[in-house]
Amino acid sequence: MHPLDTAIALTPTPAGHFLAHTSPDYANMIGPFGGATCAVMLNAALQHPDKLGVPVAFTLNFTAPVADGPFTISARPARTNRSTQHWIIEATQDSGVVALATAVFAERRKTWSNTETSTPPNMPAPSSLERMNTQNRPTWVQRYDMRFTEGPFPHAFDEQEQPHSHSSLWLRDHPPRPLDYPALVAISDSFFPRIFIRRRRLSPIGTVSITTYFHADEAALAAQSDHYLMACARANKFHDGFFDQSGEVWSHDGQLLATTHQTVYFKD
Amino acid sequence: MHPLDTAIALTPTPAGHFLAHTSPDYANMIGPFGGATCAVMLNAALQHPDKLGVPVAFTLNFTAPVADGPFTISARPARTNRSTQHWIIEATQDSGVVALATAVFAERRKTWSNTETSTPPNMPAPSSLERMNTQNRPTWVQRYDMRFTEGPFPHAFDEQEQPHSHSSLWLRDHPPRPLDYPALVAISDSFFPRIFIRRRRLSPIGTVSITTYFHADEAALAAQSDHYLMACARANKFHDGFFDQSGEVWSHDGQLLATTHQTVYFKD
Repeated sequence: MHPLDTAIALTPTPAGHFLAHTSPDYANMIGPFGGATCAVMLNAALQHPDKLGVPVAFTLNFTAPVADGPFTISARPARTNRSTQHWIIEATQDSGVVALATAVFAERRKTWSNTETSTPPNMPAPSSLERMNTQNRPTWVQRYDMRFTEGPFPHAFDEQEQPHSHSSLWLRDHPPRPLDYPALVAISDSFFPRIFIRRRRLSPIGTVSITTYFHADEAALAAQSDHYLMACARANKFHDGFFDQSGEVWSHDGQLLATTHQTVYFKD
Repeated sequence: MHPLDTAIALTPTPAGHFLAHTSPDYANMIGPFGGATCAVMLNAALQHPDKLGVPVAFTLNFTAPVADGPFTISARPARTNRSTQHWIIEATQDSGVVALATAVFAERRKTWSNTETSTPPNMPAPSSLERMNTQNRPTWVQRYDMRFTEGPFPHAFDEQEQPHSHSSLWLRDHPPRPLDYPALVAISDSFFPRIFIRRRRLSPIGTVSITTYFHADEAALAAQSDHYLMACARANKFHDGFFDQSGEVWSHDGQLLATTHQTVYFKD
């Protein structure tokens, strides 16, 4: 069983909720990797018997630190229309609500299509790049094979401010795993906090809200399979305790699969 | 009383909810302007006696068409921490939930600050530009004074596809009104659907989810007052029934006040 499948495993409860458990394979410095929390929350809607269509939009607010251990997920469709469905998904521990998410699912239909945003980064093949060294990193970082061409995780927090926080990389799950929506939403939260790249300063940080828009349908996920993805990210504004960052995730052959945005608390 | 203040007016109910009413001043082609719905939903948290701090992030999912008439808003803090607060805000009509929002509020503290995203558009003074003609437009468009330098609302839906959907403009409430959070979140939904600009085609469309990150604190709002704002927007990807667009809202003197993203249903 792939570690991501363990991390997103759900056990239905008699009350119609799901039991889940944080996974040591996706541990962060404190508590679990936020992307794993996104993945298990989205999975609760994906596994729900009333699910309609595929994810189009997903927002998760990290309401409080998630403690290592079990948690309960309640996922309910707040509204189901003919071809769209709106979810509210809550994760609770003894302390109360630790994550609060909404999702929009839809049955997609063929229409005129066009990608207008910046083209995928121009990078040499992943095999020609070195994998990021994950020694002494939280275990979740070891669950990804990341190969940067720009804006890597800093070798040292030397507080040498950089001109910008742009990153470009190839990445995929490690060990490789065919891409699905939980994996894609986790990857959308795998960009390191831009303040680390920009300031090379180990500020205390925590994502407070993340939003991902999915452009990938089931066929695009199947075509991607376990190939490397292209990804890039940049900050928008750092201001008085919060900064926001935006990123894109592209298939191995340059299809935009997801756009993602988040706002992050930082201490100084 | 400014029309926006009428549109976001709330009457507390004995059950602890708020009564609200769509406003003919902010009517769209069908139902109310989505930005007015965002504004009144955010206002319900702002007016709540338990409110802590200022808005940092706001996401609203348009779960079903809002019918012209009254609606009920329930706003509750799902979690209140020492300096952050997480809201869930629901609007209901007889048909059920019509809008579902989450918000993060926070007490902001002075930190290192920096704006990394693209600079504000280089535009001549608003007085030197012509105001968009709002004749035969929905009334909400008449509630804004928009002065485009790029990507205006098309003069005709002549189906001449454009190379991109970028827009840059000056705008403010009409009549002018000092900026506050409800006005700013409404403005963040005032960018016309990018497909209209790109394809000059009057596709049936509807925003399904919008997220706005606030960089403006109370001092920045006060400094902006009722000056013109700078704004720009662009699409990311149009694909099989949905497209996403991103935008920025800047103060008259070039401070980034908000970044905003949305995904929009389109028919063809």
